[in-house]
Amino acid sequence: MVGKEDLKLLGLEVSPFVIRVRMALGIKGVSYEYVEEDLPFNKSDLLLASNPVHKKVPVLIHNGKPVCESLVIVQYVDELFAGPPILPADPYERATARFWAAFVDDKLVPAWIGILKAKTEDERAEKATETLAAIGLVEATLADGRAFFGGDSIGYLDIVLGSCLFWFEALRMMHGVEIIDSGRTPVLAAWAERFGESAESKGVVPGADEAVKYANKLAAAAAAAAAAATK
Amino acid sequence: MVGKEDLKLLGLEVSPFVIRVRMALGIKGVSYEYVEEDLPFNKSDLLLASNPVHKKVPVLIHNGKPVCESLVIVQYVDELFAGPPILPADPYERATARFWAAFVDDKLVPAWIGILKAKTEDERAEKATETLAAIGLVEATLADGRAFFGGDSIGYLDIVLGSCLFWFEALRMMHGVEIIDSGRTPVLAAWAERFGESAESKGVVPGADEAVKYANKLAAAAAAAAAAATK
Repeated sequence: MVGKEDLKLLGLEVSPFVIRVRMALGIKGVSYEYVEEDLPFNKSDLLLASNPVHKKVPVLIHNGKPVCESLVIVQYVDELFAGPPILPADPYERATARFWAAFVDDKLVPAWIGILKAKTEDERAEKATETLAAIGLVEATLADGRAFFGGDSIGYLDIVLGSCLFWFEALRMMHGVEIIDSGRTPVLAAWAERFGESAESKGVVPGADEAVKYANKLAAAAAAAAAAATK
Repeated sequence: MVGKEDLKLLGLEVSPFVIRVRMALGIKGVSYEYVEEDLPFNKSDLLLASNPVHKKVPVLIHNGKPVCESLVIVQYVDELFAGPPILPADPYERATARFWAAFVDDKLVPAWIGILKAKTEDERAEKATETLAAIGLVEATLADGRAFFGGDSIGYLDIVLGSCLFWFEALRMMHGVEIIDSGRTPVLAAWAERFGESAESKGVVPGADEAVKYANKLAAAAAAAAAAATK
């Protein structure tokens, strides 16, 4: 734990990756300055200078030094600040949490983002199938009576997966895809309810309508760019 | 540190991901049983049962419990066993090492594997350009006089990137691509020499000719499969 902190978070309200960092900082009870970026349209000079490799949010700037990539930042926050632990204490449980966090980001996230970005109904159906296969594997890992992946309270994997839930609801509203539902994934459905009611998610996770609005804004911009290109 | 250990590593000699784990176990001075898998042709029942999600090596089986994914395993080994630390002690340096390890696996590795897998010369040239752009960014991060990314000794990022070096040499032999060379990436060229001479890499990192042999074996199997399909 360090003394006086200068913490600035560059973010985007509807980014699951940013929400992970805000939840981590919230769990630790750390206050910070939040700066909303206008993405992907206008990247600030500070963002470009702080994350020249990926030019993406979240970036946590701590005493002038940037930390990038949501999983890296959440672990940094967990290691730096006192307060409730985010990763499990036991090395094997830590490894398991890291394994599934990587699975979420390498398999599940690209699949559900693929549903959004699909250019044809066939492609959308294919990405939906991929998403359901991935979420089914995650369902199986929680099927042992724990309230959260972290045990009795929200931990690393809860943050990593829970930050995606409002987008799942947006995908249901926009495309009728039920990624988590009480019939097929009952354990995750009950977990998602607990997650949504948790103090940790309140005030940080927006409503699904915000995700829909953002998706529509991106689609409109893409359509305008396509129209301009064919003029 | 635990007492009597039962450690078994499922691996493949020419896999950079497996080499990372062997180096980590070597740094900690831990002995283990090594089991070579015949990949990708014959996956053992133990491999399929231990890593049902990805069905890939490395898998470290510790007292009967499997840990998968090389970056997860290396951190597990570092957290579990006494001996020289692998990740830096300082949280900011840990975050930086994790950031670049993710960069290597998300950007650099897919690019150089793309050179191997390219079906046309154009595609190969494109992947080579991607690889050189990625390695250029890594070069810049070491340009401050340290002997290794880990400081005076081999650490996390050294293992993560160093495990790929013999494949870089194989790509030079097979396709004439110079990923690290003393003109364009002088800092990494000097680092690669130190890495190759290190006690940590000796006996674990095979020669480039082994990589070439494995690549040729895969290519021959793919050609035989294609010939069988057109019969």
